[in-house]
Amino acid sequence: MERGCVQVYTGNGKGKTTAALGLALRAVGRGFKVCILQFIKGGGPYGEHLIADKLAPQLTIIQTGKPGWVNTQDIAEDRRLAQEAFEQAKELLVSGGYDLLVLDEINGAVGFGLIDVEQVLELIRLRPERVELVLTGRNADERVIEAADLVTEMREIKHYYKAGVPARTGIEM
Amino acid sequence: MERGCVQVYTGNGKGKTTAALGLALRAVGRGFKVCILQFIKGGGPYGEHLIADKLAPQLTIIQTGKPGWVNTQDIAEDRRLAQEAFEQAKELLVSGGYDLLVLDEINGAVGFGLIDVEQVLELIRLRPERVELVLTGRNADERVIEAADLVTEMREIKHYYKAGVPARTGIEM
Repeated sequence: MERGCVQVYTGNGKGKTTAALGLALRAVGRGFKVCILQFIKGGGPYGEHLIADKLAPQLTIIQTGKPGWVNTQDIAEDRRLAQEAFEQAKELLVSGGYDLLVLDEINGAVGFGLIDVEQVLELIRLRPERVELVLTGRNADERVIEAADLVTEMREIKHYYKAGVPARTGIEM
Repeated sequence: MERGCVQVYTGNGKGKTTAALGLALRAVGRGFKVCILQFIKGGGPYGEHLIADKLAPQLTIIQTGKPGWVNTQDIAEDRRLAQEAFEQAKELLVSGGYDLLVLDEINGAVGFGLIDVEQVLELIRLRPERVELVLTGRNADERVIEAADLVTEMREIKHYYKAGVPARTGIEM
């Protein structure tokens, strides 16, 4: 890539992770190498994990975190896994192996106190100029928004969860 | 799919088409058949078109519209192409051939007056229960929002176009 940027997808609406997946698909189509490192998302496999092989070796998806959701009553294990993921993110970022690095749900990891916002800012500072860095998750910190080049808020106008439709295979997962 | 819904991605921010592409990728990973019909998007090929073959026959992307953007000075040809695309959308929707149908930029086609909002509402009414229908494009009509099950507004918080970064191969196209 000639010139990479920092993109943030935040907000309470649906479409943050899926937008990152779509970016990944488009970038793979252009011959770029893409890595999606997922924070606090050990569950699944979801549809995106099941298809990743078909786009390998250009697309790599790495899941981190416990299978369930963050255990806010006993957060030590979640924190340890998120810190490991942060170290991995640093390595992936500077490895030269990827044109597009998506750190999925990293804002959520900050929100739960699993990693510090200073660590996210460190990643933004470490980004090689030719790497596109995409950060997703609701409640992006103001300092992350400030440091980013492009920020989109996915705003929930209407959500079918409220109408009783559960998360569906192939759509939400 | 057990039960399909109608999803709308609208707003002035980045991520509407890419969210639909991400949904497509996830659905393909689950073994669903997906068609993306693009309104007013005859240009490219973009990254998503270049990769579609790798996910065929599960993923089909159909472009319609002129190569450039809508010519608001002479809109007859754009209207004709959009009306053809609308007829094709109807056929695809009821064909039984697809679990997920994305009508990309259909809201834009309405905004330019190329198709009528009543036609979009007709598609929503015609949707077989097991088909997921996704409509993208800014300025979604209020009646479309009313008829949808899930609506996300992609709100632009910050965009690098304003900082002078042009659309980039593999990211925006």
